[in-house]
Amino acid sequence: MERRHLGGGGKGDTEMGVIHVVGTGPGDVDFIPAQAIRCLEASEVIIGYATYLDLIAPYLDGKEVVSSAMMQEVERCTRAFELAESGKTVSLVSGGDPGIYAMAGLVYEVAIARDSEVEINVVPGIAALNASAACLGAPLMHDFSAISLSDLLTPWPVIERRLEAAFEADFVVVLYNPQSKKRCDQIRKAHEIALRYRLPETPAGIVTAAKRAAEKVVVTSLAALLDEEITMQSTVIIGNSTTFVWRNKMITPRGYTEKYQL
Amino acid sequence: MERRHLGGGGKGDTEMGVIHVVGTGPGDVDFIPAQAIRCLEASEVIIGYATYLDLIAPYLDGKEVVSSAMMQEVERCTRAFELAESGKTVSLVSGGDPGIYAMAGLVYEVAIARDSEVEINVVPGIAALNASAACLGAPLMHDFSAISLSDLLTPWPVIERRLEAAFEADFVVVLYNPQSKKRCDQIRKAHEIALRYRLPETPAGIVTAAKRAAEKVVVTSLAALLDEEITMQSTVIIGNSTTFVWRNKMITPRGYTEKYQL
Repeated sequence: MERRHLGGGGKGDTEMGVIHVVGTGPGDVDFIPAQAIRCLEASEVIIGYATYLDLIAPYLDGKEVVSSAMMQEVERCTRAFELAESGKTVSLVSGGDPGIYAMAGLVYEVAIARDSEVEINVVPGIAALNASAACLGAPLMHDFSAISLSDLLTPWPVIERRLEAAFEADFVVVLYNPQSKKRCDQIRKAHEIALRYRLPETPAGIVTAAKRAAEKVVVTSLAALLDEEITMQSTVIIGNSTTFVWRNKMITPRGYTEKYQL
Repeated sequence: MERRHLGGGGKGDTEMGVIHVVGTGPGDVDFIPAQAIRCLEASEVIIGYATYLDLIAPYLDGKEVVSSAMMQEVERCTRAFELAESGKTVSLVSGGDPGIYAMAGLVYEVAIARDSEVEINVVPGIAALNASAACLGAPLMHDFSAISLSDLLTPWPVIERRLEAAFEADFVVVLYNPQSKKRCDQIRKAHEIALRYRLPETPAGIVTAAKRAAEKVVVTSLAALLDEEITMQSTVIIGNSTTFVWRNKMITPRGYTEKYQL
């Protein structure tokens, strides 16, 4: 299988490679779909943040590995394009599902900036919201909103308006990036907004390091939410007005009206 | 490995089995994580709606299969509990991710109604929103709301209020159950609400039968959304105010402010 044209050698003469954008899922290889594994296996180069590469260590053997302890996200993406433009098959590794608050967007933004002809293949994966919901029971059986509390790239008033809207309209709310070492104020403000629209006894769940060795699952009430440890690795889910707790599981019924007889 | 106590034979004397709640993902076994495959392999009985069982045909060999062409969801769940309570290991098969608008909730509701001691293991999977986002490019890089347009179990005013809230607060909006043969009015109403808050040129995507042979991916504008075919198997994603289209892909940038230099 010849990947490069003979002669020439300028960029225009090189056959393009491909970038597979692959997610690690929650962090255990058991939750990576076969399609993503196949992309890793088919790749000559695997690029990713060191923490994510550690999670897929069994698939790095014999590959050119570009770890990025010293590289930023944009540099990592750019490197993936440089390699794919030279004809390589590259997997760019993201946490969770690359399509949910993760690397897929930046890949396209870099492609646009470079006006690149490289083929981009986003492989869906299991995001923090899928994994956390399973750990908590069945909180996402009805309409929900996912909101990131990180105000690094989004002005706080935009986030605040979304929190208001989601709680007011009785969505189950999934909070991404609820807190970090340097950023503790947002979760307090979100909690305050939630309490304006939801009863203090509304079920709330915190899942930290879902499906990893350090997994911690807490089911509590909205009132007591901030008494629990919430870290950068946590996802917080706050129930809607019908969510209830049974044997430490958080369950949102499917309907507002009971149409079936149990 | 003895699963039942000797003697007795009443319900109280039987060791409990387990119910694995497993999703087929979008519909191609390549998108089912290894953990779910292992649960299927470890099960003595596999129960599911016939259409979903067809998707996992390779894993049914040698199993007791309870297909449900003639059974309703609640009956299917109840049967899973009866079998698990008699000591069997059962996989109950759901479409997509069992934890997102799918079977996990009903499983808990049936458990509660029976006051069952059976162990319930919800295995996260790839939901329609994960698969559809990957097909469309990168539409879910920022806050989003998932809303089901089915008013079978939810009064329309509740759905309408959520549509208003989500569009008003500039969420990307994922519409589940947008339309069926008998139910065409809801998507028209949702479209009308969307146009109150979003520009007609806002990107909109329709993914039908994601990752299956009949997959169809359409990227269009909000204005033209209803000109396209939308079926029971479609997921519709409507962009936020920053979403744009590039080479027929739908991309929502991660930030409202550009903090990185491309």
